[in-house]
Amino acid sequence: MDTKVIKTLVEHNIRPSVQRISIMDYLMGHHTHPTVDEIYTALAPSIPTLSRTTVYNTLKLLTEHGAVLTLTIDEKNTCYDAQTEPHAHFLCKRCGKVYDVMYDNETMEEHAPDIGGHDVQEVHYYYKGICKQCKESDK
Amino acid sequence: MDTKVIKTLVEHNIRPSVQRISIMDYLMGHHTHPTVDEIYTALAPSIPTLSRTTVYNTLKLLTEHGAVLTLTIDEKNTCYDAQTEPHAHFLCKRCGKVYDVMYDNETMEEHAPDIGGHDVQEVHYYYKGICKQCKESDK
Repeated sequence: MDTKVIKTLVEHNIRPSVQRISIMDYLMGHHTHPTVDEIYTALAPSIPTLSRTTVYNTLKLLTEHGAVLTLTIDEKNTCYDAQTEPHAHFLCKRCGKVYDVMYDNETMEEHAPDIGGHDVQEVHYYYKGICKQCKESDK
Repeated sequence: MDTKVIKTLVEHNIRPSVQRISIMDYLMGHHTHPTVDEIYTALAPSIPTLSRTTVYNTLKLLTEHGAVLTLTIDEKNTCYDAQTEPHAHFLCKRCGKVYDVMYDNETMEEHAPDIGGHDVQEVHYYYKGICKQCKESDK
Protein backbone atom coordinates (compact mmCIF):
# COMPACT_ATOMS: atom_id res chain seq x y z
CA MET A 1 0.00 0.00 0.00
CA ASP A 2 1.26 3.46 -0.95
CA THR A 3 2.52 5.50 2.02
CA LYS A 4 1.46 8.64 0.11
CA VAL A 5 -2.17 7.55 0.59
CA ILE A 6 -1.76 7.03 4.35
CA LYS A 7 0.08 10.37 4.62
CA THR A 8 -2.81 12.14 2.84
CA LEU A 9 -5.37 10.59 5.20
CA VAL A 10 -3.37 11.49 8.33
CA GLU A 11 -2.82 15.05 7.07
CA HIS A 12 -6.61 15.40 6.87
CA ASN A 13 -7.08 13.97 10.38
CA ILE A 14 -8.55 10.70 9.14
CA ARG A 15 -7.60 7.47 10.92
CA PRO A 16 -6.25 5.17 8.17
CA SER A 17 -8.34 1.96 8.24
CA VAL A 18 -7.93 -0.70 5.52
CA GLN A 19 -11.14 0.35 3.75
CA ARG A 20 -10.34 4.07 3.90
CA ILE A 21 -6.83 3.43 2.54
CA SER A 22 -8.21 1.27 -0.31
CA ILE A 23 -10.80 3.84 -1.35
CA MET A 24 -8.38 6.78 -1.13
CA ASP A 25 -5.76 4.75 -3.01
CA TYR A 26 -8.27 4.02 -5.78
CA LEU A 27 -9.24 7.69 -6.07
CA MET A 28 -5.62 8.89 -6.10
CA GLY A 29 -4.78 6.37 -8.83
CA HIS A 30 -7.85 6.93 -11.02
CA HIS A 31 -8.47 10.48 -12.18
CA THR A 32 -11.65 9.45 -13.97
CA HIS A 33 -14.11 10.95 -11.42
CA PRO A 34 -15.58 7.58 -10.40
CA THR A 35 -19.01 7.10 -8.82
CA VAL A 36 -19.77 5.03 -5.69
CA ASP A 37 -20.71 2.09 -7.94
CA GLU A 38 -17.48 2.21 -9.94
CA ILE A 39 -15.35 2.27 -6.79
CA TYR A 40 -17.40 -0.53 -5.20
CA THR A 41 -17.18 -2.74 -8.31
CA ALA A 42 -13.42 -2.21 -8.56
CA LEU A 43 -12.64 -2.92 -4.89
CA ALA A 44 -15.24 -5.53 -3.87
CA PRO A 45 -13.32 -8.56 -5.29
CA SER A 46 -10.32 -7.81 -3.05
CA ILE A 47 -12.34 -6.65 0.03
CA PRO A 48 -15.21 -9.15 0.48
CA THR A 49 -16.61 -7.28 3.51
CA LEU A 50 -17.04 -4.05 1.50
CA SER A 51 -20.56 -2.72 0.87
CA ARG A 52 -21.85 0.15 -1.27
CA THR A 53 -22.92 1.88 1.96
CA THR A 54 -19.37 1.69 3.34
CA VAL A 55 -18.00 3.17 0.11
CA TYR A 56 -20.60 5.97 0.28
CA ASN A 57 -19.98 6.69 3.98
CA THR A 58 -16.19 6.65 3.51
CA LEU A 59 -16.43 9.12 0.60
CA LYS A 60 -18.67 11.33 2.75
CA LEU A 61 -16.06 11.28 5.54
CA LEU A 62 -13.18 11.96 3.10
CA THR A 63 -15.15 14.91 1.67
CA GLU A 64 -15.98 16.32 5.12
CA HIS A 65 -12.28 16.28 5.99
CA GLY A 66 -11.35 17.97 2.69
CA ALA A 67 -9.38 14.99 1.35
CA VAL A 68 -11.80 14.43 -1.52
CA LEU A 69 -14.08 16.66 -3.59
CA THR A 70 -17.70 15.57 -4.21
CA LEU A 71 -18.67 16.62 -7.73
CA THR A 72 -22.33 17.26 -8.51
CA ILE A 73 -21.73 18.25 -12.13
CA ASP A 74 -23.93 15.37 -13.34
CA GLU A 75 -27.38 15.40 -11.75
CA LYS A 76 -27.69 11.63 -12.32
CA ASN A 77 -24.39 10.56 -10.75
CA THR A 78 -22.42 12.06 -7.89
CA CYS A 79 -18.74 11.48 -8.54
CA TYR A 80 -15.54 11.93 -6.57
CA ASP A 81 -12.15 13.52 -7.12
CA ALA A 82 -9.00 13.18 -5.00
CA GLN A 83 -7.54 16.27 -6.67
CA THR A 84 -8.71 18.95 -4.25
CA GLU A 85 -6.83 21.98 -5.61
CA PRO A 86 -9.28 24.31 -7.36
CA HIS A 87 -9.78 23.22 -10.94
CA ALA A 88 -12.73 23.21 -13.31
CA HIS A 89 -14.66 20.29 -14.80
CA PHE A 90 -16.31 19.71 -18.14
CA LEU A 91 -19.21 17.23 -18.51
CA CYS A 92 -20.00 15.87 -21.96
CA LYS A 93 -23.79 15.76 -22.23
CA ARG A 94 -23.54 13.03 -24.86
CA CYS A 95 -21.01 10.46 -23.54
CA GLY A 96 -21.26 11.48 -19.86
CA LYS A 97 -17.47 11.69 -19.38
CA VAL A 98 -16.18 14.27 -16.88
CA TYR A 99 -12.93 15.98 -17.96
CA ASP A 100 -10.55 18.01 -15.81
CA VAL A 101 -10.07 21.55 -17.04
CA MET A 102 -6.82 23.12 -15.93
CA TYR A 103 -7.17 26.48 -14.28
CA ASP A 104 -4.44 28.19 -12.37
CA ASN A 105 -5.36 28.87 -8.73
CA GLU A 106 -4.47 32.52 -9.01
CA THR A 107 -6.95 33.08 -11.84
CA MET A 108 -9.72 31.37 -9.88
CA GLU A 109 -9.05 33.41 -6.75
CA GLU A 110 -8.47 36.72 -8.52
CA HIS A 111 -11.74 36.55 -10.37
CA ALA A 112 -13.92 35.15 -7.63
CA PRO A 113 -17.03 37.32 -7.38
CA ASP A 114 -17.94 39.32 -4.33
CA ILE A 115 -19.60 36.59 -2.36
CA GLY A 116 -21.69 38.87 -0.13
CA GLY A 117 -20.27 38.04 3.29
CA HIS A 118 -20.71 34.26 3.05
CA ASP A 119 -17.80 31.98 4.06
CA VAL A 120 -16.63 30.05 1.00
CA GLN A 121 -15.30 26.55 1.72
CA GLU A 122 -15.60 24.96 -1.72
CA VAL A 123 -15.39 26.29 -5.27
CA HIS A 124 -16.83 24.28 -8.19
CA TYR A 125 -16.56 25.49 -11.78
CA TYR A 126 -18.61 23.29 -14.10
CA TYR A 127 -18.85 23.49 -17.87
CA LYS A 128 -21.27 21.34 -19.85
CA GLY A 129 -21.56 20.66 -23.56
CA ILE A 130 -20.29 18.25 -26.20
CA CYS A 131 -16.73 16.95 -25.88
CA LYS A 132 -14.12 16.98 -28.64
CA GLN A 133 -14.28 13.19 -29.11
CA CYS A 134 -18.08 13.18 -29.55
CA LYS A 135 -17.89 16.13 -31.96
CA GLU A 136 -15.27 14.29 -34.05
CA SER A 137 -17.30 11.09 -34.18
CA ASP A 138 -20.10 13.12 -35.83
CA LYS A 139 -17.93 14.03 -38.82
CA MET B 1 -51.38 35.01 -17.10
CA ASP B 2 -48.32 37.10 -17.84
CA THR B 3 -47.58 37.57 -21.55
CA LYS B 4 -43.87 37.81 -20.65
CA VAL B 5 -43.98 34.13 -19.69
CA ILE B 6 -45.61 33.09 -22.98
CA LYS B 7 -43.13 35.25 -24.92
CA THR B 8 -40.21 33.54 -23.15
CA LEU B 9 -41.56 30.07 -24.00
CA VAL B 10 -42.17 30.96 -27.65
CA GLU B 11 -38.70 32.52 -27.95
CA HIS B 12 -37.25 29.19 -26.84
CA ASN B 13 -39.39 27.24 -29.35
CA ILE B 14 -41.65 25.78 -26.68
CA ARG B 15 -45.37 25.43 -27.39
CA PRO B 16 -47.10 27.26 -24.50
CA SER B 17 -49.49 24.74 -22.84
CA VAL B 18 -51.29 25.62 -19.59
CA GLN B 19 -48.93 23.49 -17.48
CA ARG B 20 -45.78 24.84 -19.14
CA ILE B 21 -47.00 28.42 -18.69
CA SER B 22 -47.81 27.80 -15.00
CA ILE B 23 -44.42 26.22 -14.25
CA MET B 24 -42.46 28.88 -16.17
CA ASP B 25 -44.55 31.62 -14.50
CA TYR B 26 -43.75 30.16 -11.06
CA LEU B 27 -40.02 30.03 -11.83
CA MET B 28 -39.92 33.56 -13.25
CA GLY B 29 -41.72 34.86 -10.15
CA HIS B 30 -39.74 32.91 -7.54
CA HIS B 31 -35.98 33.39 -7.58
CA THR B 32 -35.54 30.91 -4.73
CA HIS B 33 -34.19 28.02 -6.86
CA PRO B 34 -37.14 25.72 -6.15
CA THR B 35 -37.06 21.92 -6.45
CA VAL B 36 -39.62 19.74 -8.31
CA ASP B 37 -41.43 19.16 -4.99
CA GLU B 38 -41.67 22.86 -4.15
CA ILE B 39 -43.08 23.71 -7.57
CA TYR B 40 -45.52 20.78 -7.44
CA THR B 41 -46.75 21.70 -3.94
CA ALA B 42 -47.27 25.33 -4.95
CA LEU B 43 -49.14 24.61 -8.19
CA ALA B 44 -51.10 21.41 -7.44
CA PRO B 45 -54.02 23.16 -5.65
CA SER B 46 -54.80 25.24 -8.76
CA ILE B 47 -54.02 22.50 -11.35
CA PRO B 48 -55.65 19.28 -10.05
CA THR B 49 -54.36 17.23 -13.03
CA LEU B 50 -50.72 18.11 -12.27
CA SER B 51 -48.33 15.34 -11.19
CA ARG B 52 -44.74 15.42 -9.94
CA THR B 53 -43.72 13.59 -13.12
CA THR B 54 -45.28 16.32 -15.28
CA VAL B 55 -43.41 18.99 -13.32
CA TYR B 56 -40.17 17.02 -13.72
CA ASN B 57 -40.69 16.41 -17.46
CA THR B 58 -41.67 20.04 -18.08
CA LEU B 59 -38.54 21.29 -16.29
CA LYS B 60 -36.46 18.85 -18.38
CA LEU B 61 -38.02 20.25 -21.57
CA LEU B 62 -37.53 23.88 -20.44
CA THR B 63 -33.87 23.10 -19.65
CA GLU B 64 -33.28 21.37 -22.99
CA HIS B 65 -34.61 24.45 -24.79
CA GLY B 66 -32.42 26.76 -22.70
CA ALA B 67 -35.34 28.53 -20.99
CA VAL B 68 -34.37 27.22 -17.55
CA LEU B 69 -31.11 26.24 -15.87
CA THR B 70 -30.93 22.96 -13.91
CA LEU B 71 -28.71 23.51 -10.88
CA THR B 72 -26.86 20.53 -9.40
CA ILE B 73 -25.12 22.54 -6.68
CA ASP B 74 -26.80 20.45 -3.98
CA GLU B 75 -26.23 16.73 -4.45
CA LYS B 76 -29.43 15.97 -2.52
CA ASN B 77 -31.80 18.26 -4.45
CA THR B 78 -31.79 19.31 -8.07
CA CYS B 79 -33.18 22.83 -8.32
CA TYR B 80 -34.21 25.14 -11.13
CA ASP B 81 -33.55 28.73 -12.15
CA ALA B 82 -35.32 30.81 -14.81
CA GLN B 83 -32.45 33.28 -14.81
CA THR B 84 -30.31 31.81 -17.58
CA GLU B 85 -27.70 34.54 -17.98
CA PRO B 86 -24.37 33.33 -16.57
CA HIS B 87 -24.24 33.94 -12.83
CA ALA B 88 -22.77 32.09 -9.90
CA HIS B 89 -24.50 30.34 -6.99
CA PHE B 90 -23.65 29.90 -3.35
CA LEU B 91 -25.01 26.94 -1.33
CA CYS B 92 -25.07 27.21 2.45
CA LYS B 93 -24.02 23.81 3.78
CA ARG B 94 -25.88 24.51 7.03
CA CYS B 95 -29.33 25.89 6.05
CA GLY B 96 -29.35 24.53 2.48
CA LYS B 97 -30.34 27.87 0.92
CA VAL B 98 -29.04 28.62 -2.58
CA TYR B 99 -28.07 32.28 -3.14
CA ASP B 100 -27.48 34.08 -6.43
CA VAL B 101 -24.02 35.57 -6.73
CA MET B 102 -23.80 38.43 -9.18
CA TYR B 103 -21.06 38.10 -11.73
CA ASP B 104 -20.80 40.21 -14.82
CA ASN B 105 -20.90 38.19 -18.04
CA GLU B 106 -17.72 39.75 -19.34
CA THR B 107 -15.73 38.57 -16.32
CA MET B 108 -17.06 35.06 -16.70
CA GLU B 109 -16.25 34.90 -20.40
CA GLU B 110 -12.89 36.64 -20.16
CA HIS B 111 -11.60 34.27 -17.55
CA ALA B 112 -13.05 31.06 -18.89
CA PRO B 113 -10.23 28.51 -19.02
CA ASP B 114 -9.00 26.95 -22.24
CA ILE B 115 -11.59 24.22 -22.52
CA GLY B 116 -9.52 21.92 -24.76
CA GLY B 117 -11.63 21.87 -27.90
CA HIS B 118 -14.92 20.91 -26.23
CA ASP B 119 -18.11 22.82 -27.12
CA VAL B 120 -19.37 24.65 -24.02
CA GLN B 121 -23.17 25.00 -23.78
CA GLU B 122 -23.58 25.66 -20.05
CA VAL B 123 -21.43 27.34 -17.42
CA HIS B 124 -22.06 26.70 -13.70
CA TYR B 125 -20.02 28.44 -11.01
CA TYR B 126 -20.84 26.99 -7.59
CA TYR B 127 -19.55 28.14 -4.22
CA LYS B 128 -20.29 26.24 -1.02
CA GLY B 129 -19.79 27.19 2.61
CA ILE B 130 -21.64 28.85 5.47
CA CYS B 131 -23.92 31.78 4.66
CA LYS B 132 -23.85 35.15 6.38
CA GLN B 133 -27.18 34.52 8.20
CA CYS B 134 -25.99 31.19 9.65
CA LYS B 135 -22.66 32.74 10.70
CA GLU B 136 -24.50 35.57 12.49
CA SER B 137 -26.84 33.19 14.31
CA ASP B 138 -23.71 31.58 15.84
CA LYS B 139 -22.66 34.81 17.53
